[in-house]
Amino acid sequence: MTRTLNFAAGLVLLLAAPVWAAEPLPSWNDGNARKAIVSFVARVTTEGGPDYVPPSERIAVFDNDGTLWSEQPMYVQLAFALDRVKTLAPSHPEWKTTQPFQAALEGDARGLAASGEHGLLQLVMATHAGNTTEEFEQIVRTWIATARHPKTGRLYTEMVYQPMLELLAYLRANGFKTFIVSGGGIELMRPWTERVYGIPPEQVIGSSVKTRYEARDGRPVLLRLPELNFIDDKEGKPVGIHQHIGRRPIAAFGNSDGDFQMLEWTAAGPGPRLALLVHHDDAAREAAYDRASAIGRLARGLDEAGTRGWIVASMKHDWKLVFPAVPEKQ
Amino acid sequence: MTRTLNFAAGLVLLLAAPVWAAEPLPSWNDGNARKAIVSFVARVTTEGGPDYVPPSERIAVFDNDGTLWSEQPMYVQLAFALDRVKTLAPSHPEWKTTQPFQAALEGDARGLAASGEHGLLQLVMATHAGNTTEEFEQIVRTWIATARHPKTGRLYTEMVYQPMLELLAYLRANGFKTFIVSGGGIELMRPWTERVYGIPPEQVIGSSVKTRYEARDGRPVLLRLPELNFIDDKEGKPVGIHQHIGRRPIAAFGNSDGDFQMLEWTAAGPGPRLALLVHHDDAAREAAYDRASAIGRLARGLDEAGTRGWIVASMKHDWKLVFPAVPEKQ
Repeated sequence: MTRTLNFAAGLVLLLAAPVWAAEPLPSWNDGNARKAIVSFVARVTTEGGPDYVPPSERIAVFDNDGTLWSEQPMYVQLAFALDRVKTLAPSHPEWKTTQPFQAALEGDARGLAASGEHGLLQLVMATHAGNTTEEFEQIVRTWIATARHPKTGRLYTEMVYQPMLELLAYLRANGFKTFIVSGGGIELMRPWTERVYGIPPEQVIGSSVKTRYEARDGRPVLLRLPELNFIDDKEGKPVGIHQHIGRRPIAAFGNSDGDFQMLEWTAAGPGPRLALLVHHDDAAREAAYDRASAIGRLARGLDEAGTRGWIVASMKHDWKLVFPAVPEKQ
Repeated sequence: MTRTLNFAAGLVLLLAAPVWAAEPLPSWNDGNARKAIVSFVARVTTEGGPDYVPPSERIAVFDNDGTLWSEQPMYVQLAFALDRVKTLAPSHPEWKTTQPFQAALEGDARGLAASGEHGLLQLVMATHAGNTTEEFEQIVRTWIATARHPKTGRLYTEMVYQPMLELLAYLRANGFKTFIVSGGGIELMRPWTERVYGIPPEQVIGSSVKTRYEARDGRPVLLRLPELNFIDDKEGKPVGIHQHIGRRPIAAFGNSDGDFQMLEWTAAGPGPRLALLVHHDDAAREAAYDRASAIGRLARGLDEAGTRGWIVASMKHDWKLVFPAVPEKQ
């Protein structure tokens, strides 16, 4: 009984006291972006305050490519697709003379670009479908454990942004539920997001192919079909959020105009809202790109952030470091 | 410091000890169904045991109609659609002479049945689409707060099964994450599942219409389109589970052959699995129906439960009571 009471007292104490022991967000400089985040969290978690939001409604959504991990010099998903083309090529001799596969096999970036969106879609369908969901998960697990970034030689899962990892943990410690809402393939993320970001598979939203339930050798499987199910980008992001979460987030984090509608939808709700864009302006530590970039283009977001009250976080000025420290020996 | 240590000690104690203070599942008789549930939970939560499952993988899925609440004498969703037809009729004078609307307005069950699946789909599209998601949510909230079961006169949210409410709470107290996986419309459930079942909107999976993101009077909205997005029934249930959850449940609960594939998919994974069918064999307290029923038909499930090791819970014999006690004054 006494132990139970002690426990209850401890629990009450824990719930009443600020949940962060040390200074939160240590890799963020003490600029406007960090101030806006900390102030927002304080407002929505202050019980009895005018902006209090109950924990069940503390939903925060994060884009992945360019927001939680690096998307330069190419989307990780494209690197995966190109590696898969090479792996599958022996059983597809016709690819040697068929675009976009020929370009993929020859590392011909220009030819690949010339194949356009339709070509990229062909690549994705040829490399992301035809397996069962369990086979595909294993393919992703194996690939992500060894594939390395072409410039830094780091694992892709080490090309995540330390300040954003701290932000995810800080929000969760303050009762938020954190979701990924990415234009990337949902099953390319789920096998590792819990380990790397602390985000379980059921809180990952992304683009997907259709699947079909069928028996294979007497065992039920879900077969991945070469048919698009959902594109979780631009106007698709609020649609995907509604489908999966069923309520409007109060905080949204992105880095490109593909995230515009997600931030707009989040910010349009009543009460306190936080919308933040990561601005890649750090050529020395990562990359500098925005209006003119083919990957992660950010123009409308920069133009309208000010009038909309969205925060633009400068990678160069707001972040003390970009990537987590990695043990010397790789 | 001392308080912190006390708290930590209390937490360890809490995690190590059985989480249920009193006897679990008080509304279940001590038969095979209850024994199977309690034994399964003990096995997957025993750290160091051969069947231990870490909390993040303790996913339990529940059908809704006929498993968590009553589906007789008609699906609640159909009652909702019929009420909506009456509400909307003044702006649709043509419905007076057009099927299936005429039958709906005249309470002509035979005419309604004669319109078949296509007619029912027409009804759903005419009554579930054309609004924004926020408008529809408000319509559902208003309706569910007042609409009553045609036989008992109870609110539909009081036509839930007390033993299943206890099962949901028992699983959650043992580290499970509980999901609804229903053939019913997802947005017809989300406004009240947290209050009634303790299941938040993001853990509700169901059938859906497509939505479109657009601006209305300068504000972004999601418009509900008269176009099916997903049918979460039969083979669709494993597909929906994979889309939303991204991993295989270890426990599944249903009541009809519409749940067969969900139970099959759940049971086909490695390690301990629990698959349970609620058998409606209690004409006195609720309803008795299975093989011959148009609603909630259960035939294959009954035929194969034995060889598959699925539990068939008899409403009549396994449940001490069916519905929660409701205050006299309604």
